[in-house]
Amino acid sequence: MEFELIERLKSALPHDSQLPLGIGDDCAILAEDARSEQLVTTDMLLDGIHFIYDTDKENAQSLELIARKSIAVSLSDIAAMGGKPQTAFLSLAIPRSWDADQANELFDSFAKAAREFQITLAGGDTTSWNHLLAINVTVVGKVPKSKAIRRSGAQAGDFICVSGPLGGSLSGKHLTFTPRVQQGQWLREHCTIHAMIDISDGLLADLGHILQQSEVGAEIVAEQIPISKQADEISDNKSPLEHALTDGEDFELLWTMSKSEYEKLMQQKEGFIEVHHIGNITKEKGCFLVDQQGHKKRRGDEGYVHQLGEEESLL
Amino acid sequence: MEFELIERLKSALPHDSQLPLGIGDDCAILAEDARSEQLVTTDMLLDGIHFIYDTDKENAQSLELIARKSIAVSLSDIAAMGGKPQTAFLSLAIPRSWDADQANELFDSFAKAAREFQITLAGGDTTSWNHLLAINVTVVGKVPKSKAIRRSGAQAGDFICVSGPLGGSLSGKHLTFTPRVQQGQWLREHCTIHAMIDISDGLLADLGHILQQSEVGAEIVAEQIPISKQADEISDNKSPLEHALTDGEDFELLWTMSKSEYEKLMQQKEGFIEVHHIGNITKEKGCFLVDQQGHKKRRGDEGYVHQLGEEESLL
Repeated sequence: MEFELIERLKSALPHDSQLPLGIGDDCAILAEDARSEQLVTTDMLLDGIHFIYDTDKENAQSLELIARKSIAVSLSDIAAMGGKPQTAFLSLAIPRSWDADQANELFDSFAKAAREFQITLAGGDTTSWNHLLAINVTVVGKVPKSKAIRRSGAQAGDFICVSGPLGGSLSGKHLTFTPRVQQGQWLREHCTIHAMIDISDGLLADLGHILQQSEVGAEIVAEQIPISKQADEISDNKSPLEHALTDGEDFELLWTMSKSEYEKLMQQKEGFIEVHHIGNITKEKGCFLVDQQGHKKRRGDEGYVHQLGEEESLL
Repeated sequence: MEFELIERLKSALPHDSQLPLGIGDDCAILAEDARSEQLVTTDMLLDGIHFIYDTDKENAQSLELIARKSIAVSLSDIAAMGGKPQTAFLSLAIPRSWDADQANELFDSFAKAAREFQITLAGGDTTSWNHLLAINVTVVGKVPKSKAIRRSGAQAGDFICVSGPLGGSLSGKHLTFTPRVQQGQWLREHCTIHAMIDISDGLLADLGHILQQSEVGAEIVAEQIPISKQADEISDNKSPLEHALTDGEDFELLWTMSKSEYEKLMQQKEGFIEVHHIGNITKEKGCFLVDQQGHKKRRGDEGYVHQLGEEESLL
């Protein structure tokens, strides 16, 4: 059903020659002026799926963290295109059981997040209903003309890189992460990046999006994958490596670039840019994981299942 | 609580000098290029509030009508600024109980609505959850630079006009209306319109928004208010006139213009432009209704309550 949605909309919709890029990347690209293009991304965050507000539950989260995450998720999409976020639009479905203090806390939290991320909240829509909190955020950003980094440009021989340790985001990072907006822009300005995405569905799933759209394959090396402290500390039936490969909501950047650009990057990069080379793009399709014994194993693009639900992001 | 949201966000947010118009009109205006500006509006539509899908209910509505309305509501906001809609972004929270046929029917309905309204669906986001259908639509449109028609420009002496009969929308029109996009653009191109809004909350409430933002008052004449056939046919304790004054979701345009521009308009207007002169803008604040006996009665900006809930549109 999920994959079908993209295909269905793509095939059912008229082609718009005014639209440089539509459904299927981190953001849509809209024509702007002679020098710049606009990036637009939209995300809906739901109580019980992307956050837990229901105060009966032990692991309920503060409205401040919920509002911040709601904006940060879209900023991560802008970052993945190398763009600069500018303006956000907010829609809120608020439980009718809330009192004014709760509503005001939510509004203030959005204003605070907008200040932190230096974007303007330019509009929105609020309705109350008998169900749980639902939040939609649309963010508009900017990128120099033809410079947006898409998912479709990976080339055989490219180095595959990630911007930080992966896995175990559910133990906290999914609510407190800082979207890699500065890093995305720095990479776009200083390097030739062939393809980029943010890791929201999990390393394998999001690498899968790059591979599919670029019509290439990949070989990633288990030992080179940076595993987060949180993934190391989880005690369940999955190894820390498996968490790093398949957990969602890391919101790190995943990109590909030529070996020579990678070498240039490692010499030039500023302190706030973290780079982990985890493998290479191959001409042969399919994604293979090389383990510590040197064995290659084909790995699909295992999707990430949200806390309680499933999700697909068209953008 | 509702009014406070706008004020709270306005006061809590940094002023953005790059943003020609933020929260508080039908759309936000974003700078684009030397010749044009961009309009952005966002609306969240919820099952049980803006439509009824729950198939247990007798008056349940088809997904085709629901998808169409979800887009049409935002197009009406673009129309109210005199703009041309271009691109839409969709977020869907889909009940987990749905089967693939239902989801596909919804997607196809959105594609159909996009074709009908000649806009591009450029992206979106889908999640399934254990609650009711929630839909968010963000529409981006265009208007020549500095030509967007705001709520704040009404002047004493202006004629107040509406684009069609009002009231009783709940008996069907709220799902089948055609947003006045052509009319809004025609008016912007051919006339000097001082202020415009679309009637989503009800005539008195939306006129109230113009009066408040323009810092003027109004006198409207009961006999001149066009009352829809649907409002005439409702048998409840409200008169047809009261329905026309206070029912929401008419999605007609409400605008003000000088007497001389009005006279020019009545000579020039093409067949698809419907104009009803319902009263005049006054220097004295407050909104007054003149009844058939010539008595003036002050009327507040009575808000419209949605089928089951309350709503406020920041845009």
